[in-house]
Amino acid sequence: MSEDLESARKYIEKRSENASHADGLPTRFWEPLIMSGIKVDLIEPGRVICSMKIPQRLINAGTSLHGGVTATLVDLVGTAAIRSSGAPQLGVSVEINVSYLDAAYVDEEIEIEARTLRVGKAVGVVSVELRKKKTGKIIAQGRHTMYLAVSSKM
Amino acid sequence: MSEDLESARKYIEKRSENASHADGLPTRFWEPLIMSGIKVDLIEPGRVICSMKIPQRLINAGTSLHGGVTATLVDLVGTAAIRSSGAPQLGVSVEINVSYLDAAYVDEEIEIEARTLRVGKAVGVVSVELRKKKTGKIIAQGRHTMYLAVSSKM
Amino acid sequence: MSEDLESARKYIEKRSENASHADGLPTRFWEPLIMSGIKVDLIEPGRVICSMKIPQRLINAGTSLHGGVTATLVDLVGTAAIRSSGAPQLGVSVEINVSYLDAAYVDEEIEIEARTLRVGKAVGVVSVELRKKKTGKIIAQGRHTMYLAVSSKM
Amino acid sequence: MSEDLESARKYIEKRSENASHADGLPTRFWEPLIMSGIKVDLIEPGRVICSMKIPQRLINAGTSLHGGVTATLVDLVGTAAIRSSGAPQLGVSVEINVSYLDAAYVDEEIEIEARTLRVGKAVGVVSVELRKKKTGKIIAQGRHTMYLAVSSKM
Repeated sequence: MSEDLESARKYIEKRSENASHADGLPTRFWEPLIMSGIKVDLIEPGRVICSMKIPQRLINAGTSLHGGVTATLVDLVGTAAIRSSGAPQLGVSVEINVSYLDAAYVDEEIEIEARTLRVGKAVGVVSVELRKKKTGKIIAQGRHTMYLAVSSKM
Repeated sequence: MSEDLESARKYIEKRSENASHADGLPTRFWEPLIMSGIKVDLIEPGRVICSMKIPQRLINAGTSLHGGVTATLVDLVGTAAIRSSGAPQLGVSVEINVSYLDAAYVDEEIEIEARTLRVGKAVGVVSVELRKKKTGKIIAQGRHTMYLAVSSKM
Repeated sequence: MSEDLESARKYIEKRSENASHADGLPTRFWEPLIMSGIKVDLIEPGRVICSMKIPQRLINAGTSLHGGVTATLVDLVGTAAIRSSGAPQLGVSVEINVSYLDAAYVDEEIEIEARTLRVGKAVGVVSVELRKKKTGKIIAQGRHTMYLAVSSKM
Repeated sequence: MSEDLESARKYIEKRSENASHADGLPTRFWEPLIMSGIKVDLIEPGRVICSMKIPQRLINAGTSLHGGVTATLVDLVGTAAIRSSGAPQLGVSVEINVSYLDAAYVDEEIEIEARTLRVGKAVGVVSVELRKKKTGKIIAQGRHTMYLAVSSKM
């Protein structure tokens, strides 16, 4: 096998090692793993701001916040903002996108602000920005599009 | 506080409860949490296929694969495919997007296929598709754009 | 005004000069401007392939296909594919995204392939790829998400 | 041919009819077609605001601004904002995405605001919002990611 293919294989396999902690974990563990430690700083109609200090368990192979965590925060804090605008309790994700702009490191305080762009009967869209609390520097910006009329057929 | 704002607040707070398991977890736990149990089915230049059986710990408040997990799989399996095309070992995410097309439930076998669209000196782009193994039905499609010339200034 | 601000202003203003041809043009001229010269090569349920030779009028300030044209092709050929899957005649765009992968030059033959990922009652999603006809090299890949139940409130 | 396939074919073919005006048009006609009539309202480092009255020639098969025009405005006004932040004169699009939130009709005044999120040596990202001038209602929000170090290999 060529060097490139070997490097690709190792990239995956290294990430599934040392996972002995994973197997005994409770059901639906994904969300508490991220959201433990998050604080709600502001809720008003169409706008939610949360903050957190980046814990070691959520960093990537380097020393900064994992991109998958960022995407999940766009999902979850975005959903909360759509609810704050009066959307129905149910809803499913249609699209999530994230631009990664800067790294945020272990123990940095970050702020996650979600602002709804549209909340209709069927479609809700929210813009979410992650920033460093100290400097206001933007770490990531994303959007989350939801289908809200889940009682009807999607 | 109005009912909508209360619903938004509860949405966040419910997700940070029962997180006692989270605090003692090892550093960089995010990736093994997902990748434990993943298998590499195929690696060729520019193409990687992995598969996994959806574990209970990775589902959302319902009973299906969490959207944040899907986004992280687009990130990780996509990165492996970019490496298989001969990209340098380092690289940072510039953009990740995901369209959510269907739900995948606990214990379902899924397949994640990443195919590079472009791997240049500076920018790599990969398309990633998640499918149900039994039926081939598409669960999600996303793209991951990376900046690869990290030794130069980004 | 600093040099950077002057450069930004000129970038916009240069693009609105020499537009004397624009003012007398007929209503709804945008689509024929692009679609004139396009050929339908294949239509089957959920899949449409078109081709065109890149005309001079659609290039950017350099000599290659304008990114806005690419985005419009993702829109239009994608919509056709969603219709070929049996979606209702009406529908509105919810999200369009495009990754630009390679340049395509004046007089090059390109191929636009749209493949539906999901067509439900309310939401349709289609993946669209632009390729060089001669070599198959990918120029761009995008997705178009539509809301289809327009008779209901969106 | 089934009804759905026929509908898809007609969707494309109708758009390439009545295109007699298109063939004699000058080279690089795409940008002036949109930008004719646009005004620059504000330029400061990292921020550009333009406005325009929607002309008949830029509407879709209905009576509102064409989604492809919106995507092109995200491209062009976004590029101007990246330049206003001191980016080099050259640059190529890596990714454009747009969420469509509301319709804007013929003769409505709209405002396009671009705000840079990051302008580095190699990668620039800008957020662009289209709004109705009268009410401030958001029509669309998008992002444009550019690769700026074009003199180096991409």
